[in-house]
Amino acid sequence: MKKKVVIVGGGFTGLNTARILSNRKDVEVTLIDRKNYHLFQPLLYQVAMAALGEGDIATPLRNMLAGYDNVTVFKGNVCNVDLEQKKVKTDFGDIEYDYLVLACGAQHHYFGKNDWEEHAPGLKNLAQASEIRRRVMEAYEAAERTNDMKERKKQLTFVIVGGGPTGVELAGSIGEMSRYTLSKFYRHIDPKLTRIFIVEAAERILGTFSPELSSKATRELEKLGVQVWTSSMVSDVDADGVQIGRERIEAATVLWAAGVKASEIGQNMGVQTDRSGRIMVEADLSLPGHPEVFVGGDQACYTLENGSTLPGMAPVAMQEGKAIGRMILDDLKGKPRKPFKYRDKGQMATIGRNRAIVEIGNLKFDGAIAWFTWLLVHIYYLSTFKHRVFVLMQWAWSYFTFGYGARLIVNKDWRFYREQKSSPCDDKKA
Amino acid sequence: MKKKVVIVGGGFTGLNTARILSNRKDVEVTLIDRKNYHLFQPLLYQVAMAALGEGDIATPLRNMLAGYDNVTVFKGNVCNVDLEQKKVKTDFGDIEYDYLVLACGAQHHYFGKNDWEEHAPGLKNLAQASEIRRRVMEAYEAAERTNDMKERKKQLTFVIVGGGPTGVELAGSIGEMSRYTLSKFYRHIDPKLTRIFIVEAAERILGTFSPELSSKATRELEKLGVQVWTSSMVSDVDADGVQIGRERIEAATVLWAAGVKASEIGQNMGVQTDRSGRIMVEADLSLPGHPEVFVGGDQACYTLENGSTLPGMAPVAMQEGKAIGRMILDDLKGKPRKPFKYRDKGQMATIGRNRAIVEIGNLKFDGAIAWFTWLLVHIYYLSTFKHRVFVLMQWAWSYFTFGYGARLIVNKDWRFYREQKSSPCDDKKA
Repeated sequence: MKKKVVIVGGGFTGLNTARILSNRKDVEVTLIDRKNYHLFQPLLYQVAMAALGEGDIATPLRNMLAGYDNVTVFKGNVCNVDLEQKKVKTDFGDIEYDYLVLACGAQHHYFGKNDWEEHAPGLKNLAQASEIRRRVMEAYEAAERTNDMKERKKQLTFVIVGGGPTGVELAGSIGEMSRYTLSKFYRHIDPKLTRIFIVEAAERILGTFSPELSSKATRELEKLGVQVWTSSMVSDVDADGVQIGRERIEAATVLWAAGVKASEIGQNMGVQTDRSGRIMVEADLSLPGHPEVFVGGDQACYTLENGSTLPGMAPVAMQEGKAIGRMILDDLKGKPRKPFKYRDKGQMATIGRNRAIVEIGNLKFDGAIAWFTWLLVHIYYLSTFKHRVFVLMQWAWSYFTFGYGARLIVNKDWRFYREQKSSPCDDKKA
Repeated sequence: MKKKVVIVGGGFTGLNTARILSNRKDVEVTLIDRKNYHLFQPLLYQVAMAALGEGDIATPLRNMLAGYDNVTVFKGNVCNVDLEQKKVKTDFGDIEYDYLVLACGAQHHYFGKNDWEEHAPGLKNLAQASEIRRRVMEAYEAAERTNDMKERKKQLTFVIVGGGPTGVELAGSIGEMSRYTLSKFYRHIDPKLTRIFIVEAAERILGTFSPELSSKATRELEKLGVQVWTSSMVSDVDADGVQIGRERIEAATVLWAAGVKASEIGQNMGVQTDRSGRIMVEADLSLPGHPEVFVGGDQACYTLENGSTLPGMAPVAMQEGKAIGRMILDDLKGKPRKPFKYRDKGQMATIGRNRAIVEIGNLKFDGAIAWFTWLLVHIYYLSTFKHRVFVLMQWAWSYFTFGYGARLIVNKDWRFYREQKSSPCDDKKA
């Protein structure tokens, strides 16, 4: 009898599990995702900032898995899991499993203030990237149209909430675009006067990096006109700006790069989760008491021996996906599972042209070398050869012309996933 | 005193007028468009069919006009024109003109049945192209998910209403994609069984071409699995298909490539229009009684000596745009205006890989040579060098790999323009 493996989510984890299990005669894999594409999320901010197009960082899951005869892909919503009956409940029926891999990722979290989302969209999918691009570009258009100086200043003010890698990348890109690209396109405004704020609750930005590199990043951001406000907690967000305690920044555009929360499925299942909704897993990435259920990527909370947990990063998700695939193969061979071991390959963040920071163990560097390292690593990890060629060409073009890609304003239904999630599944949660 | 020229619309007409008037000290140009980009509409169906990305056929107007110091661009909505006061009424205030150029294009027209739009979107802007892509790809996903054979057949049935160049291009692309690209991606369905219908009210498709070429195109379409129903008038469109008199086609996806109607501004202004809302113009493309107001492109109805009118095609719009620019320059020099003369460069339509038809005067050809001609002409007319390079690369890639581009499903707010139009301008029409 073939073992039925159901994978929920076609991100870095799900895709890597599917690949490990591919073309095996004893395993039948079903991958379910509510998108029809795999997204290379580390470059999503470049779509938001018009440096790349949607097709440059996303590939249909069917393309990526076409060569694996034992893998079936369904586009659909998973609402809940029946752990006793070993069934996944979807909006197109129940699907039985022998092994289940949950890798549904995370979404933005507004600390209970869900009405902030309207005024401060996050960046997790392509529609949101388009929405952020639209808001940023519309602000410059509105500034050019108006004669009211106060209004113009508000339109040329951008606030990014959260000083992690995404917040830094967004702020750096807006700074760079306003200084080097947009300046020649407007007649009534000087885009160089754009004001950009990063508002970070912690004492420093990029808290997972060493204080030294975090301070270097702050200086690089300041060179691009970004003001970094640390130890600053946003107390309110509305259509005209943000409130930080007693201080107020009037801004037409506010972007959210702060908290994330794991997919709701963990809550629906009633299993143990941490504060951000991540499902607690054993050393072999399985659900406690359910060795046939694995959780990986941003949805999993994997506790290290020192008590800390693995962060929501692409390398973690990739390694977990491969490890889960190997655990299943070990089971089939009757071998004992080996605990998952994360191989830390370091971390990096980019601020702009020739500006980045890289930290690999004790090795730390910044500037142009760091930027080229960042660039090579990202090209290397892109999912297809075609993507590598086209992204490299776009980057080379922008690098030599100081231009950005097509800053097109196209309205997209950016809250689609939230809305969709709450409709067909609502009656199936119970 | 500098003459104030206001151009409404950044399509082929408006852009060409702006270029003719660029960098002149005696003219101040203001171009208003509700989009922030110029769209190369002849290739829009390729975005809908995922062969190209949005950025491949659209360029921000500000990029294209950045080098012209006397041109200001505003993104905004024009609601009406006060011909007596010589003012354009926009949602960001009134703008005075000495010369006005109206080139607002056309939209789809449902012959008074506006509720059909929901079930049969048209193809005029990027958001609609995404919506068509989404519907086509979602249909294959739904067919793969279901076990109900009747439902599966409905999902794999596509109806295109209208057998003009756009309808033929859409039908040909779906036929080709289903046969050559999608076939290896699904486990439960055979995309080769896709049924595609073109429903055309006239006696033959591609009515502006010679009967000989139109018949060749029909045969090429049939080879790709497209059934061509001529002399067939759609009497109803709903969520499950179309009604053609007594006959019914059950189809999950219906696309509209039939009637178009010129922008509503003509009606708001109360000037003489033809049945499709196009404004009647004099031999110099001016509004009767208003030599300072020009109309061009799909919004103009230009009557030839033989009584026929110029069609809504890119070459017509380009030539009219240039002619309008020259009329204004002639006025400034005190020279009499020369009547507009359209130089017919022929027409072409593409059906698929190595399949196209070309008609230039009495010269008619089809097949691979026609297809390469089509390809070269479109590359040549693309607006920037970067677009030419990237589009050619995408095409070469697809040609040699038999692959299509990224068939990403991203929800966009495709009825955006309609909604937007009815909000800020409503109180300013009067």
